[in-house]
Amino acid sequence: MSHTVEILSVGTELLLGSIANTDARDLSVELAALGLDVHYHSVVGDNPKRLREAVELARGRADILITTGGLGPTCDDLTKQVLVEAFGKKLVFCPACAQQIRDYFARIGREMTQNNLQQAWLPEGCTVLDNAWGTAPGCAFQSGASYVVMLPGPPGECIPMFRERAVPWLAKLREGVIHSRVVRIFGMGESEVESILRTRMNQLVNPTLAPYAKEGEVELRITAKAADLAKAEELIVPVEGEIRRLLGRRVYGTDVPNLEQVVLDGLKYRKLTLGTAESCTGGLIAKRLTDLPGASAAMKGSVVSYTNEVKEQVLGVPRKMLDQHGAVSGEVARAMAYGARRVLDCDIAVAVTGVAGPERDERDNPVGLVYVALATPGEIRVTRLELGSGPTYARERVRNLAASNALDMIRHYLEESGAQ
Amino acid sequence: MSHTVEILSVGTELLLGSIANTDARDLSVELAALGLDVHYHSVVGDNPKRLREAVELARGRADILITTGGLGPTCDDLTKQVLVEAFGKKLVFCPACAQQIRDYFARIGREMTQNNLQQAWLPEGCTVLDNAWGTAPGCAFQSGASYVVMLPGPPGECIPMFRERAVPWLAKLREGVIHSRVVRIFGMGESEVESILRTRMNQLVNPTLAPYAKEGEVELRITAKAADLAKAEELIVPVEGEIRRLLGRRVYGTDVPNLEQVVLDGLKYRKLTLGTAESCTGGLIAKRLTDLPGASAAMKGSVVSYTNEVKEQVLGVPRKMLDQHGAVSGEVARAMAYGARRVLDCDIAVAVTGVAGPERDERDNPVGLVYVALATPGEIRVTRLELGSGPTYARERVRNLAASNALDMIRHYLEESGAQ
Repeated sequence: MSHTVEILSVGTELLLGSIANTDARDLSVELAALGLDVHYHSVVGDNPKRLREAVELARGRADILITTGGLGPTCDDLTKQVLVEAFGKKLVFCPACAQQIRDYFARIGREMTQNNLQQAWLPEGCTVLDNAWGTAPGCAFQSGASYVVMLPGPPGECIPMFRERAVPWLAKLREGVIHSRVVRIFGMGESEVESILRTRMNQLVNPTLAPYAKEGEVELRITAKAADLAKAEELIVPVEGEIRRLLGRRVYGTDVPNLEQVVLDGLKYRKLTLGTAESCTGGLIAKRLTDLPGASAAMKGSVVSYTNEVKEQVLGVPRKMLDQHGAVSGEVARAMAYGARRVLDCDIAVAVTGVAGPERDERDNPVGLVYVALATPGEIRVTRLELGSGPTYARERVRNLAASNALDMIRHYLEESGAQ
Repeated sequence: MSHTVEILSVGTELLLGSIANTDARDLSVELAALGLDVHYHSVVGDNPKRLREAVELARGRADILITTGGLGPTCDDLTKQVLVEAFGKKLVFCPACAQQIRDYFARIGREMTQNNLQQAWLPEGCTVLDNAWGTAPGCAFQSGASYVVMLPGPPGECIPMFRERAVPWLAKLREGVIHSRVVRIFGMGESEVESILRTRMNQLVNPTLAPYAKEGEVELRITAKAADLAKAEELIVPVEGEIRRLLGRRVYGTDVPNLEQVVLDGLKYRKLTLGTAESCTGGLIAKRLTDLPGASAAMKGSVVSYTNEVKEQVLGVPRKMLDQHGAVSGEVARAMAYGARRVLDCDIAVAVTGVAGPERDERDNPVGLVYVALATPGEIRVTRLELGSGPTYARERVRNLAASNALDMIRHYLEESGAQ
C-alpha cells in the first residue's frame, strides 16, 4: 500500500509573507524519511470556508492529511473546528490535556487565562499528541480511508511533536516500524560525503541512507523498516558504525540537535568551563551556546572585542601586535584566546577574528578570512579559515561558519581529551 | 474590483523538503504591498497531471495566478507546457529572448548548451518578462478573467523579476501606481495600536492602513494608489504624520529595516560609541548589532557575563550586591551597565539581566523577569520588564524581547539627546 500525503498549513501570516512555511519543508524531510510521498503543500488563511474547501480537496487527493497551525486560542481553534465538521465528528473535553496546560503555565510561573483551556477540546476518539514544547496539544485520527494528523504551527512545537508523537502513530499504519538515526557531520561538503559513501549508499535498501546539506554541515539519515524498534536498530547500528569509520572525526554526533549542544554536553561531562572572545562573530558564539537551556553550567561568558581598543584594554592584546600583524591575524587570535581565558577565568577559551564583509578590511584581507584560536590548559591552537567563497549573503554566512568552526574546534579538543 | 491571488509553486525539491518555499513568502509580502489579497499558496511536484489539476483549481478560485519554478531546461519547461495547454495557447519562438540567453552565457563566460534555447519558446501573445538575473525568461498574459504570471524558481531570479518586471505589468491592470510606506512601532501591542487608530483605519480608503504584528513590534503599512509616485506620496505623507502624532515616541522609523539599524544609525550620527553587558541575552544584543555592516563605527564590544563570577570580576559588580539582591535585580543591572561603560570605555552601555527560562531561577523569579539598565554620560536608567506572558517559546522569546527592549531604550535616549 502506497500512502500519499498533503500538508495543509493554516495561517494568514503565511499568506502575508510574514514567515516562510518551514513546517512544510521540515515535515517533508521527515515524511520522505518514512517512505511517504508528499504530493501537495497547501496554505490557506484563517478563513473557515476556504479551510473547509481545502480539507475536502485534500482528502480527495491524498490519504494522509497533515495540518499545521490554527490550534491556539487566538485563532479560535479554527483547524479543529473545521476538521471535526468535515469528518463528521465532535469536540470532547480532555481533562488530562487541561491539566498539562495548567502545569505548563505553573512551570513557567505565569497565570493561565481561561481561553487557554479551549485547547483541551479535541476530536472524539482521537489519539492525543502531547505537546511538551508549548500548550496546544495535537491529535491524530482515522476516518474512513483518511488519516489525519493535526499539529501546532510554531516550528519549535510542530517538528518535535511530529517526530516524537506523530511518527509512532503513523508507523502503526504500516505494520511494523520505521525508525531513523541522523548522523551529523561538520567540516565536509555534501559532495565529499557522497563520494566517500556512494558505493554503500547505492547498495543499501533497508536501511536507506539519505544525505542532506546545511550551512557547513551534512546530515545523514539512516532509515530502517522492521517489525519492531529493536529490529530496526539492529539494521541501523552497523551502518552507523560504518559511516563513523569512513568519516572519522568529522562525525560530531548521532541524534543530536546541533554542534553547540554537543559542545555544551561535552563541557558539562568533563566539568570544564568555557569563555569566548569574539571579534567578527560579535557575540554569535556566545548567543548560540546560551540559546541552550542550562548553558550556565559551563558557559562563563564572553568578551566581544569589536574594536582594537577592547582587544587591547580588556583582553590584553598588545598594541604593538595589533599594529604589526593587524587585528585579523593568527597572532591576535592567539592573544585574544589567551586573554579571554585569563579575564573570564575559564578552563577553555575560544577566540575569533576575521573579515565578515561585505568589504575587505583596511589591510586588504579578503572577506571570509578568519582566524580561530583555542586556549586550553595545555596549549593554544590556531586555525586559519577561508570562508568567503559562497555566492551570496557573504556576511551572515561568514559569521555563521566562523562560529561553527570555533565550536567544532572545541568539540575536537573535548573528544581528544577523554572518552565522552 | 478586488483581485485575489494564488501562488502556485512547481518543484519536487519543495515536496522533498530540500528548500523552504521562500518565493511564496517573499512574493506574498510584495503582493500585500500592492493591495492584492493572496488567498492560497500551493506546491506541486514536477508532475504534469497534478500540475494541470492544480492550475484548473487555481483559475477557479483566484483571478491572478502566479507560478514559480518549472521553467528551466532541467524540468523540460514543465510549467510553460502545462499552462499553455490549460489556457488553450501555443508556444512560439522569441528570437530576442534567444539572443539574451546567448548574451547571458557569454557574459558569465560559460558555454551554452542547445537545450537552453528551449527557454526562448513562450506562450503566444504574452508579455515577456526579461530575466537579467539568470537565463529563463518569465512571462505574463491575460486569458478571459485570469491573469497569469510565470516566474523562475530560484529566489535570486524570482523576486527581482517580480519586482522589476511583473509589478509594472500588474500595475497596468490597475491604471496607476501602488506605493507603500511602512511605519515601525516598538513597545505597543497590535491591539493597542489598533484601538488608537481604529477610527482612522476604518475611514481610510486611499491610502489604506494595515497593521501587522511581529515579536514585540507592530508594522503599519500605508498603501496608496495614484496616477504616479508623487501623487501616491502626497496621499501617504499626511497619514504618516497623523500616525506619528497619535503614537508618538513608539514609532521608531519609517521604511527602516529594524530597531538595531535605527540604533546604529543614531549612534553614528551623534558620534557615540556603545557597549553591552549581557547576562540572560548571552551576546544576542551584540550579535544583532554586529549583523549590520559597518557596526564597528559605533559598537565597541560587549561583556557577556553569564556567571556571577564574570559579573564581579570583569564588570566589577560587588559580590555583596549579588548576594543581597540576586543577579536578577535592578541593582545588578545598574552595576553591570556602569561596569560595562567603564571596562569597554564607551559613551553608552546597556546591560541586561533576567530569567530566560525554561525554569524559574534559584530565587524563584519567574521566567521573563528582566532588568535593563542604560548608562549614559549623565545618568543610569533601569527598567523592569515582565516578558513571560507569551504561550510558547519562552526562552527564545524572552531573549529576543529583552534584546529588543534594550535596543529601544538606547533609541529613546538617542532621540531625546538631539534631533536625528
